[in-house]
Amino acid sequence: MPAKKPDYNKLALALHKKLRGKIEMKTKGKLVSKTDWSTMYTPGVAAVCTHLFKHPAQARDYTMKRNTVAVVSDGSAVLGLGNLGALASLPVMEGKAAIFKELANIDAIPIVLDTQEPEEIIRIIKALAPGFGGINLEDISAPKCFEIENRLKAELNIPVMHDDQHGTAIVVLAGLINAAKVVEKKLSSLRIVVVGAGAAGQAITLLLIKAGIGETIMCDSRGAIYQGRPGLEGYKRKLAEVTNINKLSGDVMQVANGADVIIGVSGPGSIARAHIEQMSRHPIVFALANPTPEIMPEDAKRAGAAVVATGRSDYPNQINNALAFPGVFRGALDKGVTDITDEMKINAAIKIASLIKKPTAENIIPSVMTPGLVKAVASAIKK
Amino acid sequence: MPAKKPDYNKLALALHKKLRGKIEMKTKGKLVSKTDWSTMYTPGVAAVCTHLFKHPAQARDYTMKRNTVAVVSDGSAVLGLGNLGALASLPVMEGKAAIFKELANIDAIPIVLDTQEPEEIIRIIKALAPGFGGINLEDISAPKCFEIENRLKAELNIPVMHDDQHGTAIVVLAGLINAAKVVEKKLSSLRIVVVGAGAAGQAITLLLIKAGIGETIMCDSRGAIYQGRPGLEGYKRKLAEVTNINKLSGDVMQVANGADVIIGVSGPGSIARAHIEQMSRHPIVFALANPTPEIMPEDAKRAGAAVVATGRSDYPNQINNALAFPGVFRGALDKGVTDITDEMKINAAIKIASLIKKPTAENIIPSVMTPGLVKAVASAIKK
Repeated sequence: MPAKKPDYNKLALALHKKLRGKIEMKTKGKLVSKTDWSTMYTPGVAAVCTHLFKHPAQARDYTMKRNTVAVVSDGSAVLGLGNLGALASLPVMEGKAAIFKELANIDAIPIVLDTQEPEEIIRIIKALAPGFGGINLEDISAPKCFEIENRLKAELNIPVMHDDQHGTAIVVLAGLINAAKVVEKKLSSLRIVVVGAGAAGQAITLLLIKAGIGETIMCDSRGAIYQGRPGLEGYKRKLAEVTNINKLSGDVMQVANGADVIIGVSGPGSIARAHIEQMSRHPIVFALANPTPEIMPEDAKRAGAAVVATGRSDYPNQINNALAFPGVFRGALDKGVTDITDEMKINAAIKIASLIKKPTAENIIPSVMTPGLVKAVASAIKK
Repeated sequence: MPAKKPDYNKLALALHKKLRGKIEMKTKGKLVSKTDWSTMYTPGVAAVCTHLFKHPAQARDYTMKRNTVAVVSDGSAVLGLGNLGALASLPVMEGKAAIFKELANIDAIPIVLDTQEPEEIIRIIKALAPGFGGINLEDISAPKCFEIENRLKAELNIPVMHDDQHGTAIVVLAGLINAAKVVEKKLSSLRIVVVGAGAAGQAITLLLIKAGIGETIMCDSRGAIYQGRPGLEGYKRKLAEVTNINKLSGDVMQVANGADVIIGVSGPGSIARAHIEQMSRHPIVFALANPTPEIMPEDAKRAGAAVVATGRSDYPNQINNALAFPGVFRGALDKGVTDITDEMKINAAIKIASLIKKPTAENIIPSVMTPGLVKAVASAIKK
């Protein structure tokens, strides 16, 4: 049994009430003398506006655009809590903005949208884009998040990343690289079951495939996804084409039989001890639902898990998107990268994994406070 | 002749290039220990989200919303420069955000919109509203700015103010109160000509009428606006009903004959020395176009102006919106005022004027650095 944990809910409520906002603005220039006022604002600022009207690309050099990312949510999938709407998602966006600043010195602006209609969200973000150097989509439900991200990537000339998809996928891949070392298995021969076929589930699976990691079977609430499953449509139909090569059917219990890795991106209770007990030797369990994992680490261990990771900061092996997104955007902003490719994501994962020199069961993934982390990830994002 | 002025255009370009953004984000909470991470972010932040889902009104107590204002523009009327579009307006919005922070400790977020269609702007701002405690509209052209502001005021439950209208009107009224003292004329008997019938012109005129200040005649590019003028429509038709009681027609030269005050909210060159020369004794001239006034102060003085004010920080008597907007929003945010009324604006103007104990021709309006300014203005904004 681990030591009794602090009541983070209570502490978080008290902290938020005390802070009344986790981020604030800070002025870079002075506003004291007449000259300050005449150059920070009118009349001098007019010359800057006129200059940018003629040379829009130089907004990078004359405005906040270059270092500013919008963290945008419609609140339709807040953490693992579901559709709480815009206002209730604001604390998450503020938290991400704080992380962006502390880890990567990026100025991130929380934007929560009081609409959940995909076309409207796309229109709004496109309209907001001139003032931003990048767009971090957050806590937007599947499947609309796919369409929203794809469209924005195609139609905007700044980097766009849905962090719940790609940030998660990068860090899962990083963790898996080191977990495989711990259990002494080859990445290319791992059998992996992904429980949950939402935004994170799809992104993880597609990145694992792209990285050449063994074989993956995805499960949704109706069990394994396989080609020809009755009623299968949309993005899941496409996933069936590239996963589950043996077209296994059945529930998680059946497909997890003999698997090396089970990755939960679903919700509390969707991974049971019984699932783990019939996996192959030294099972790897990533239970990533937030704030409550699919199975608590103590239970996974009792069921025989050799390596357990969660999304939580209060357990070992935190699969924390904050390992990836600050560095990804740092790299993209600095190098003018407008499209975050799969190759870049895989390289970012390798960089993150490499920060752990000797992986152990309790230490497969670096802490977000690891010196050089952001720089290492940023180095993977380049043209 | 005043001393040779510095080249503010050149200085401003250099300053902006050096700063690369006049504002940045700053984290309020720490992100060092596990407990920091578990309370600023997951898992603890989930409790805050859930709490706000149940008690949305408490966003004031748990998030940045309470102290955060969006400074929104579509770039359709950037300063006096015209329609430069979203990106080129960003330096102005950043400047306002810097002023909001330095003067009133308000966290203002520049939002520049890549659309100039009124319904779209309204939809976007309504969608953005949950994360903000107030909306400061900026540099949006007339007449659409009227519709946009009116609709947002009616449909949102946070304060909305188009600063080019009402910030300007408040400070003009404040300046006029003291200018009238300097020339020893009664406010209630002033004859005023407003040159320019755009956003600022309408707002100034309506506030002067509401405050019981003499008689006002507005001019647009076709001359005096009067009831029955052929082709008069829209908001100007309504203005004709409440201004120019004697239905004078003619150009600025004709209606300025014998006037006590001329207020330019138009553009360079629209007030001439000849206009001023035939005004009544001790003419008051407010030439507010930015960055280049309708007439330069030196020329106005030569034409006999007793008191001259401009929008510029490098001349005496700056009619600077920054005297009003930080305090207006400070008061509204602190007291939960959702509708900024004309009574509040008039009281704010009186408070600003009262900060000058003994007005003189070169000192009718306080500096933005006047101690107690924001507090004084904020005290006028209350339920």
